[in-house]
Amino acid sequence: MTWITNAWYVAAWDHEVDRTPLARTLCGVPVVLYRKLDRGVVALRDACPHRMLPLSMGLREGDSIRCKYHGLKLGPDGVAQEMPLRTDPVNTAICVETFAVCERHRFVWIWIGDRDKADPALIPDLWPCSAPGWAFDGGYYPIACDYRLIIDNLMDLTHETYVHGSSIGQAELMETPITTAVEGDEVVVSRWIPDIDPPPLWRDAIKADGRVDRWQICRFLPPAAVIIDVGVAPVAAGATPECHDQGVRGFVIDVMTPQTATTSHYFWGMARNFDIDDAGFTARFKAQQGGVFMEDVAILEAQQRSIEANPDLKPRAYNIDAGGTRARRAIERLRTTDVS
Amino acid sequence: MTWITNAWYVAAWDHEVDRTPLARTLCGVPVVLYRKLDRGVVALRDACPHRMLPLSMGLREGDSIRCKYHGLKLGPDGVAQEMPLRTDPVNTAICVETFAVCERHRFVWIWIGDRDKADPALIPDLWPCSAPGWAFDGGYYPIACDYRLIIDNLMDLTHETYVHGSSIGQAELMETPITTAVEGDEVVVSRWIPDIDPPPLWRDAIKADGRVDRWQICRFLPPAAVIIDVGVAPVAAGATPECHDQGVRGFVIDVMTPQTATTSHYFWGMARNFDIDDAGFTARFKAQQGGVFMEDVAILEAQQRSIEANPDLKPRAYNIDAGGTRARRAIERLRTTDVS
Amino acid sequence: MTWITNAWYVAAWDHEVDRTPLARTLCGVPVVLYRKLDRGVVALRDACPHRMLPLSMGLREGDSIRCKYHGLKLGPDGVAQEMPLRTDPVNTAICVETFAVCERHRFVWIWIGDRDKADPALIPDLWPCSAPGWAFDGGYYPIACDYRLIIDNLMDLTHETYVHGSSIGQAELMETPITTAVEGDEVVVSRWIPDIDPPPLWRDAIKADGRVDRWQICRFLPPAAVIIDVGVAPVAAGATPECHDQGVRGFVIDVMTPQTATTSHYFWGMARNFDIDDAGFTARFKAQQGGVFMEDVAILEAQQRSIEANPDLKPRAYNIDAGGTRARRAIERLRTTDVS
Repeated sequence: MTWITNAWYVAAWDHEVDRTPLARTLCGVPVVLYRKLDRGVVALRDACPHRMLPLSMGLREGDSIRCKYHGLKLGPDGVAQEMPLRTDPVNTAICVETFAVCERHRFVWIWIGDRDKADPALIPDLWPCSAPGWAFDGGYYPIACDYRLIIDNLMDLTHETYVHGSSIGQAELMETPITTAVEGDEVVVSRWIPDIDPPPLWRDAIKADGRVDRWQICRFLPPAAVIIDVGVAPVAAGATPECHDQGVRGFVIDVMTPQTATTSHYFWGMARNFDIDDAGFTARFKAQQGGVFMEDVAILEAQQRSIEANPDLKPRAYNIDAGGTRARRAIERLRTTDVS
Repeated sequence: MTWITNAWYVAAWDHEVDRTPLARTLCGVPVVLYRKLDRGVVALRDACPHRMLPLSMGLREGDSIRCKYHGLKLGPDGVAQEMPLRTDPVNTAICVETFAVCERHRFVWIWIGDRDKADPALIPDLWPCSAPGWAFDGGYYPIACDYRLIIDNLMDLTHETYVHGSSIGQAELMETPITTAVEGDEVVVSRWIPDIDPPPLWRDAIKADGRVDRWQICRFLPPAAVIIDVGVAPVAAGATPECHDQGVRGFVIDVMTPQTATTSHYFWGMARNFDIDDAGFTARFKAQQGGVFMEDVAILEAQQRSIEANPDLKPRAYNIDAGGTRARRAIERLRTTDVS
Repeated sequence: MTWITNAWYVAAWDHEVDRTPLARTLCGVPVVLYRKLDRGVVALRDACPHRMLPLSMGLREGDSIRCKYHGLKLGPDGVAQEMPLRTDPVNTAICVETFAVCERHRFVWIWIGDRDKADPALIPDLWPCSAPGWAFDGGYYPIACDYRLIIDNLMDLTHETYVHGSSIGQAELMETPITTAVEGDEVVVSRWIPDIDPPPLWRDAIKADGRVDRWQICRFLPPAAVIIDVGVAPVAAGATPECHDQGVRGFVIDVMTPQTATTSHYFWGMARNFDIDDAGFTARFKAQQGGVFMEDVAILEAQQRSIEANPDLKPRAYNIDAGGTRARRAIERLRTTDVS
């Protein structure tokens, strides 16, 4: 396994989980998710304890689920409520594995490891996704690569020039130094670009001409999230790396969940503190970022294939990879000290 | 291997094998089948002993087959009759493996194991397929699951409610006790439902109103057949589990042959002792059952995938699985005492 | 590995390699090929030494190539010329593996093994492809089989009857003895058919009626080429196996390169010493031979699948396989004495 077992991972967007069962393989484990009448989320191993038919093919009855094959009915606690032959006495020793879930920051989080350790306080703090004064929306993308290649990509602020040359790249970015800092299990990679002309996207956001300060601050949060603080402020406003709410500000939210060792679920979104009620802007912003993301998908899936096709070679790390390297080191440290 | 090696398996329906070679992988072994001029069936390993091109790509000449690559000609006894270079003297030590075959009950049976043990008396007794006074027809279906999952399915009389709720399910079925009996290497699961209104299919078959007794008697015959005695008789006729030819009676014939450990050939048919000359009824009956079977295919293939996706789990058996469990036990006993 | 490592293999036709990078897996190794401004060919491992993205996705800049991911720029010697962060000092210890290449006989040859041993004098002598007075053209075909199955096929002069019965087969071929000779690491299989009516293709080529002598002389050249000397001469001209330039003569050129253990690149062409300026004849000849080749592809790929489906069996060799057997023996001898 290449991931931390005892940790919260995003299973789905809040809007993806409804009364109809949803099947998704998370950290290598087939899981079925559905909502109870009180909207609480149930997560069960997606295999009937009887003959292993996926429960996601079954029928939800009230807050329970009934297997499509022989009709074994299981409650939201995973315990048998009715036997395949209805006249048989219920054996409550029959049960399916359940997983701790928690809804927060617009996501449904799941804990695949040791359930006793599933403390909601350990959920990564993605505050811009749910804080008042911020608007947040995004999408779900499956991607055929190791989830750590996505983290490498996000913690690196230089690939924009070549991968995204036609969209968010900007010449000044290449000339500005990058700083990397480790804060406990988190890693921060920052770039502060003072006194420049804003690129079109930010010019459109700030709705004014004139020179701005621009920033990009990537923060890795274990087990597998990267949030990127981005924005611009008029030079005169005096924004600093420590305090920069003077202009327009957003957070690119990237949360990855391993599906297998070489495939991943990618949950992407954008939170912003400006024009938060402008639904049209939200939709345009999301569509634009989707296009940028597709450029990354082509690179990441080719990189995964190349790693498999060249088993005698290994990726190396240079200066620009300091952020990704330190994030991987944090994952490895937490993974190996994980007693589960 | 998960199957008994020294046993007769169905290779094909009698109408599937003709003068044109037919390729089919049976119990993991590529086989080519064709008929001689006297209509006897030839079964050879589907690989030329010379350079291994499939013989099924070759040309049948008289009762022999000639490889498409270099023209090695092999007789129906598998022995070389002509060398690739026709002027070379024939080396009769060159031969391809042949398999014992036997045509019975409308099927072509093959013995993949030790040929010396291939006694036709060991062919499972599917008498309703060929007895006078009975009509029989059916079809061939490939299915991507372990052949034993199909046996489990057929030896279980409760899945009808959930899998076939819209076709052959009936509420009374769930309320009638099931009995399981082991008779040597055979296993019998029975349900006798007295004094009910017949479901539409049987009402149509018996062509009369009024209460009936209904029965379902599943019999497993090694290595891999299940025949199900089904029907209804007017209550007044006094049918019993031992003797029930008073009304309309049929046998669902299910014969499985492993292709690989996770794929199977499924030969399905229906034999009946009423309206045996009504070709239209035969065709409607067959079409209806084909639809029921497709509901099973969806379940069985999903079950196979789930078993592979959850390697840490195992299917369990409850009361209703007594028939399948005992059939698997018989297979395992015969498999491990099989000296080949 | 089933191939000789220290040897020249064809990477591509000369016209396939241009300024745009070409990706091809050769002897199991992903390689990118492109031409410099002086038309010299560069061959690099197709994986950026930084994060392993295929360099073939990159941008050629002058004679160098820049990775599409982070912009690492590598020279045609494989050495870093510019770091991902352009302001970082260049570390010339960063480099990608380069391969020796040589352009000869209309092909680009590559040496995947130990570079120090890459002596151009070791390139197989395919002189008819580039000699004055000869015309040469052909095509590239991927084929899903072990490259040695293609050599077997080409060193065997009997399969024509069954595989190519409708095109180049001729009854007299089967009645003429074949001779096999080993000349160092080369193997020669010959057939001399005196005093026959020419088949349509050769009648068309020689543009005259009358009896001819016909020849087919297959020569295996390690590591993986077969050239076939073919043609006809009027009987009166007194052609001999040693000297037969009296009529029309051609060489079928077949050069194979392993891609993986079970897939190959096949470079096929036809050289001839008659009507060498008739471009229409060249095109018709090529189209005709392409059709013949497709008949071989069907056989060879079925043979490969059958070898995999019958792991308990092995292809055998008879008299007619003497040429292929000796060619495989030469490959095995060179392969095992190869010290790399």
